[in-house]
Amino acid sequence: MTIPTDPETGKFVRAPNHFAARITADGRDGWPVEPGRYRLVVSRACPWASRSLVVRRLLGLEEAISVAVADPIQDERSWRFTLDPDGRDPVLGIRFLAEAYQAAEPGYDGGVSVPAIVDVPSGKLVTNDYPQITLDLSTEWTAYHREGAPDLYPEKLRGEIDEINQAVYRDVNAAVYEAGFASQQSAYDEAYSRLFARLDQLSDRLSRQRFLVGDTITEADIRLFTTLVRFDAVYHGHFKCNRQKLTELPVLWAYARDLFQTPGFGDTVDFDHIKRHYYQVHEQVNPTRIVPKGPDLRGWATPHGREELGGRPFGDGTPPGPPPAAEALPPQW
Amino acid sequence: MTIPTDPETGKFVRAPNHFAARITADGRDGWPVEPGRYRLVVSRACPWASRSLVVRRLLGLEEAISVAVADPIQDERSWRFTLDPDGRDPVLGIRFLAEAYQAAEPGYDGGVSVPAIVDVPSGKLVTNDYPQITLDLSTEWTAYHREGAPDLYPEKLRGEIDEINQAVYRDVNAAVYEAGFASQQSAYDEAYSRLFARLDQLSDRLSRQRFLVGDTITEADIRLFTTLVRFDAVYHGHFKCNRQKLTELPVLWAYARDLFQTPGFGDTVDFDHIKRHYYQVHEQVNPTRIVPKGPDLRGWATPHGREELGGRPFGDGTPPGPPPAAEALPPQW
Repeated sequence: MTIPTDPETGKFVRAPNHFAARITADGRDGWPVEPGRYRLVVSRACPWASRSLVVRRLLGLEEAISVAVADPIQDERSWRFTLDPDGRDPVLGIRFLAEAYQAAEPGYDGGVSVPAIVDVPSGKLVTNDYPQITLDLSTEWTAYHREGAPDLYPEKLRGEIDEINQAVYRDVNAAVYEAGFASQQSAYDEAYSRLFARLDQLSDRLSRQRFLVGDTITEADIRLFTTLVRFDAVYHGHFKCNRQKLTELPVLWAYARDLFQTPGFGDTVDFDHIKRHYYQVHEQVNPTRIVPKGPDLRGWATPHGREELGGRPFGDGTPPGPPPAAEALPPQW
Repeated sequence: MTIPTDPETGKFVRAPNHFAARITADGRDGWPVEPGRYRLVVSRACPWASRSLVVRRLLGLEEAISVAVADPIQDERSWRFTLDPDGRDPVLGIRFLAEAYQAAEPGYDGGVSVPAIVDVPSGKLVTNDYPQITLDLSTEWTAYHREGAPDLYPEKLRGEIDEINQAVYRDVNAAVYEAGFASQQSAYDEAYSRLFARLDQLSDRLSRQRFLVGDTITEADIRLFTTLVRFDAVYHGHFKCNRQKLTELPVLWAYARDLFQTPGFGDTVDFDHIKRHYYQVHEQVNPTRIVPKGPDLRGWATPHGREELGGRPFGDGTPPGPPPAAEALPPQW
């Protein structure tokens, strides 16, 4: 995998999401909400894709939207279905996610990213617009939410959620990549400083309240969680985000454990996929492709004490049940 | 710098020390103990060289044996005196340590390592045999030890010290390099497992006694210290020794802080040299040569509580005074 950086500044340049059609209840983009019609393609390694796995679980959309899990190791054709029998996704019948991109736009030669939602009948990619995907699962798929599903994007809190999401995106979700993929010291230094300044500010906020916005789990928590859960496993060492480990930031560590131990969060996390992806794909950062045996992950199961702050994780709703058997993960430590 | 590994196993192959003459009180190798005659060449980045810096300080040999500090960044000619005016060591008058190796053995084309002791009058390298260098400072230079110098290698404890030194060398001092320089997963895995098994065993031992052997500081503590003090700064991330940080291993962390805060230990440690050396020289491990800004080092100054275990750090002796002004280091955090 080649990591694109600006030759002048050494800053990592993230490719834009190209396919931004929306699947909506009214079908205005030509893609109506319809259970069984779409397939969500993810890598469990990828923090952007993992958001949609968490939201799908919390909302109980597992029956309505099936999931395809790509091999955590991409090759030059990007995400592959090499974990499946014969190396083909059993529903889409394709070997590479790129085939769905090609079906949607013949001749497409841009990036191939997850999460991606594919229209099963036509085999065409509908969207890889990850920030919109999770919001649409919350707001457009309501007819198929489970009984007791939480409202992850409550109307009256959207302003505050959007605002914090923007800061978390810039200074946390994206900043870890900007630190890790920087090709010049100054670009790294700037991303590192911005990251830890924001983590300090979030720690302060979360020392007084159990969740980021309001008193229930929202989209904002999910977006922070998918970076925090990867922090010690990959960002701390591989991306040099090493002022402290997450385990050394008491508030954020307790906050992350609280979410991890909530049904729908930790049961989507595959640390093996996460570690192998980052350490084996980014040869520009880790040329030996050796995957560290650490860190010791057992701390994720320890008591977090966050109940003392109050909060109602699912508001007036309930936690989801266990994941479907086909999606259950092996023990993580 | 090219890292030599076995093509079959991926194991790092350490070059032997080539020059093993000894400087002794009786001068039997042709190199008699004589104050002012020899120059100790070190890099403050290097754990092997740092042993001799600590021993020299503890024994008060600063006047008897002067020190040359090489630039932490080697080039293809190895250690350089680029920190000195005109890039020349002011005493030896050479630009590269390799010149002293050449003076000792014209045509020598093996490795150039620190610590190295050079005979000032002839400019010839005497020895780069680091395990013997520190023992000889303790046992052959006694006539020039300071008043109150500790006995770092007491006769009646030598068997026990030698035994623990052997285990610490194999499973700690060398194992971190074997983990970090492995070119195959299996070689890394083996070194990692051996390292942490030994650290667990040392933690257990040090939970009951303040120092490794007897109740005073000995050579054994110095050899463990120089690896532990580098652990979180470089071995944890750069060498993937990441089961835990040292800060997460309570006994070893307190033990390391106890030594760090003892005059003669922490005052020899330059974290800037350590980090720049490892991250900038080993391009096979860190091709971007970016140096992490972390970890937060302030914990090194926090109380360690090890006094409760008893022990007499300097036995019947006393701690050394501060380092000579010319060797004092800038604040480390």
